[in-house]
Amino acid sequence: MEIQWVAMIEQLEIDVREPGLHEITASVAKIVTGSGLREGLCTLFLRHTSASLTVQENADPSARRDLEAWLDRLVPERDPLYTHTAEGPDDMPAHIKAALTTTSLSIPVVDGRLALGTWQGIYLWEHRRYRNRRNIVVHMGS
Amino acid sequence: MEIQWVAMIEQLEIDVREPGLHEITASVAKIVTGSGLREGLCTLFLRHTSASLTVQENADPSARRDLEAWLDRLVPERDPLYTHTAEGPDDMPAHIKAALTTTSLSIPVVDGRLALGTWQGIYLWEHRRYRNRRNIVVHMGS
Amino acid sequence: MEIQWVAMIEQLEIDVREPGLHEITASVAKIVTGSGLREGLCTLFLRHTSASLTVQENADPSARRDLEAWLDRLVPERDPLYTHTAEGPDDMPAHIKAALTTTSLSIPVVDGRLALGTWQGIYLWEHRRYRNRRNIVVHMGS
Repeated sequence: MEIQWVAMIEQLEIDVREPGLHEITASVAKIVTGSGLREGLCTLFLRHTSASLTVQENADPSARRDLEAWLDRLVPERDPLYTHTAEGPDDMPAHIKAALTTTSLSIPVVDGRLALGTWQGIYLWEHRRYRNRRNIVVHMGS
Repeated sequence: MEIQWVAMIEQLEIDVREPGLHEITASVAKIVTGSGLREGLCTLFLRHTSASLTVQENADPSARRDLEAWLDRLVPERDPLYTHTAEGPDDMPAHIKAALTTTSLSIPVVDGRLALGTWQGIYLWEHRRYRNRRNIVVHMGS
Repeated sequence: MEIQWVAMIEQLEIDVREPGLHEITASVAKIVTGSGLREGLCTLFLRHTSASLTVQENADPSARRDLEAWLDRLVPERDPLYTHTAEGPDDMPAHIKAALTTTSLSIPVVDGRLALGTWQGIYLWEHRRYRNRRNIVVHMGS
């Protein structure tokens, strides 16, 4: 028996300039291709608590805009409930939005490619307003 | 040292005829049993953006009905906020519901069985109204 | 070729006395250190449907209190929508809160440590009011 591939970990840095869904599918796919993994599992882990990861429709941008607008309305800024306000009016909503979505995401790799559905894209969802550099750890295992 | 098991990927196709929580525990368990994996991790990835995966109580159906009714009320159809309406009134709510739940799910395998709790079942949560064939990629790794 | 590490599964038992976010970062880190895993993936799976797992800010406790208060307001007890009321007024809200957050969580291990961000902690989010013993299965794989 021969095992040619066990695991690899890479870092993905994303510069974001505004809140909302930022597609990272191509960057993740490039890491998977570069790793040489043919069959396995690719897991993304976001190292922040005011942004999140999500898989969403990559076809019509209006679906993503509606999703962002809906979540902004559900979790508005300046809610009198908030006591954690020292880091700005967008900080506490960002933590809540992150808790309602996900920090880690696992996608199988089949024939050397991410096994995404036809209409699926991988997104970094930035919940804060200012410019940020976001760090995602990418684990690939057989 | 001997390694007898590294990884296996299977596809699970689910025909759904109505929205709501559809239990898939037995189908996933059958794939795990068939794989021969004794100790490891089973990861499900749903290849769609208008349905989701969840682990919920499998005992009392009223808990699942309340969960569905609650989410339907939180994310109603025909919300004036929506601009993405071309694919039907249930499409945009479906994307939002998918974003609030999960697309991937990992469950350890112990002694050849999914390590679910006593009251846990695995569910495909269909968020659209019409009949659908949904595809789940099942990765099993040691 | 030599493979020294494939996978290990441990159980983590948490006694909780009240609802809310209970930090388990140190307990998980101890299991990872004890396993000897240097590079890989640590996956947590919670074996319950009325609590959840989340990664949140571990710095200012007010952020966690606001997060709990916000979710309590979104998913109140004694909502007339609920029909599943036999297990107490906090039971159905607990299932809904669990569905909105996550049951499994995967964190890469780099240089023998969980690759958490500076401000990230791992939390068991108890959604029920009474004392509970909660069980988390911890899978570590290369």
